[in-house]
Amino acid sequence: MEKLEMLYKGKAKKMYATDDPDVLWVEYMNQATAGNGAKKAQIEGKANLNNHITSVIFDLLKARGVESHFIKRLSDTEQLVKKMDMYPLEIIMRNTAAGSFAKRYGVEEGTPLKKPILEFCLKSDDLGDPFINDDGIVALGLASEEELAEISRIARAVNEGLKDIFSKIDVQLVDFKIEEGKTSDGTILLADEITPDTCRLWDLKDKSGKIEHLDKDLFRRDLGNIIPAYEEIYGRLVKLAEAEGIERAE
Amino acid sequence: MEKLEMLYKGKAKKMYATDDPDVLWVEYMNQATAGNGAKKAQIEGKANLNNHITSVIFDLLKARGVESHFIKRLSDTEQLVKKMDMYPLEIIMRNTAAGSFAKRYGVEEGTPLKKPILEFCLKSDDLGDPFINDDGIVALGLASEEELAEISRIARAVNEGLKDIFSKIDVQLVDFKIEEGKTSDGTILLADEITPDTCRLWDLKDKSGKIEHLDKDLFRRDLGNIIPAYEEIYGRLVKLAEAEGIERAE
Repeated sequence: MEKLEMLYKGKAKKMYATDDPDVLWVEYMNQATAGNGAKKAQIEGKANLNNHITSVIFDLLKARGVESHFIKRLSDTEQLVKKMDMYPLEIIMRNTAAGSFAKRYGVEEGTPLKKPILEFCLKSDDLGDPFINDDGIVALGLASEEELAEISRIARAVNEGLKDIFSKIDVQLVDFKIEEGKTSDGTILLADEITPDTCRLWDLKDKSGKIEHLDKDLFRRDLGNIIPAYEEIYGRLVKLAEAEGIERAE
Repeated sequence: MEKLEMLYKGKAKKMYATDDPDVLWVEYMNQATAGNGAKKAQIEGKANLNNHITSVIFDLLKARGVESHFIKRLSDTEQLVKKMDMYPLEIIMRNTAAGSFAKRYGVEEGTPLKKPILEFCLKSDDLGDPFINDDGIVALGLASEEELAEISRIARAVNEGLKDIFSKIDVQLVDFKIEEGKTSDGTILLADEITPDTCRLWDLKDKSGKIEHLDKDLFRRDLGNIIPAYEEIYGRLVKLAEAEGIERAE
């Protein structure tokens, strides 16, 4: 597989073409951002950890019947993924009130929700990634009624898979953000990454009664260094994958 | 029917108890507000017009099979309605992009939508009436799954009824906001008011190519006096009700 021209540079990853038109070469970056890019830093080791974490999570999800764009990990900071036609949506699943949801509705962070909440935001830095509902998505032509049903089904399946994974490593899956796209043959798949950058993960081993963040809120809220937390998550995930005898794509 | 103590004073109406526990006495006010109360004025004649307009619209909707809380008009500024247990939701239907929707998603005002959009906002002055989706409503316990289905069905039925009414008087129904509640016997009904305060209404008789607002945007955007526009809407609605031989509750 040959790495060709860069197609896209996001906040946390660069995407390159390859000699296979259906495959992209992803390079994770050390850059951390928060508040739609308002806060920015270089954090040594983040690229390596997130590349490893998302790879093992995609493997663990696959073993639970949830397919993704992930093909295999190439190096400490690189992986191959299926090329997708991406929906311009941030797809958010929430199990516990936190972050923008807690603030928006005046609900205390940590309040359990009566059911998992699926939310969408229109991906647009210029517009500040505005919240959008199902009717809005269809009315603006971002996805058809049928596509949206499949996108939603996948998001809820990812949530069930991740809840199972994280409960087994004593971590509370508070909420997370994914993206989805369509392959060249029209299959809708989970894409992007699943890492402590994109999930809220609270340590259930901590019995202090305070929230022990194992995610990017450490950076967002200036609560401490993210690297030990990300290493903790990665260590527990790898142990789980070994215990389950998961086949690793690397 | 006896008017008893004031139960609630909103931005545009006062609600009073009556000697019937299932009936409220509504008094329309001349106050106009915009931007969640940031802009405020007293406009002579608005109470009278809105009380008349919402009464004829409720009658016209009833003739189209859409029931509401409206019982009858009592005077120029007063009416009787059924007492309801209100859902804390602003229920918005959009047929054409305008206002906060156009701004939120960077869509030009006047862009037709591929399908009518139903949106909900949590009614909360403190939180700025935040946008909420179906999952959020159920997860926060604002309505059950079954209630929300009925609330949505009613909102779409109101939209179909209003589109029919306004098309017959050469007015484009761009969007509108309603509220719904539950009567003491558990029936979910359209409530609150339907007036040019709560609808965007564009004059289709105007052939200038510019948007001729017949609604509160005249006030919100400092485009002119609302009274002649509200009188125009009322005049056309009364003619329609007469032409249709609608029974008036007054």
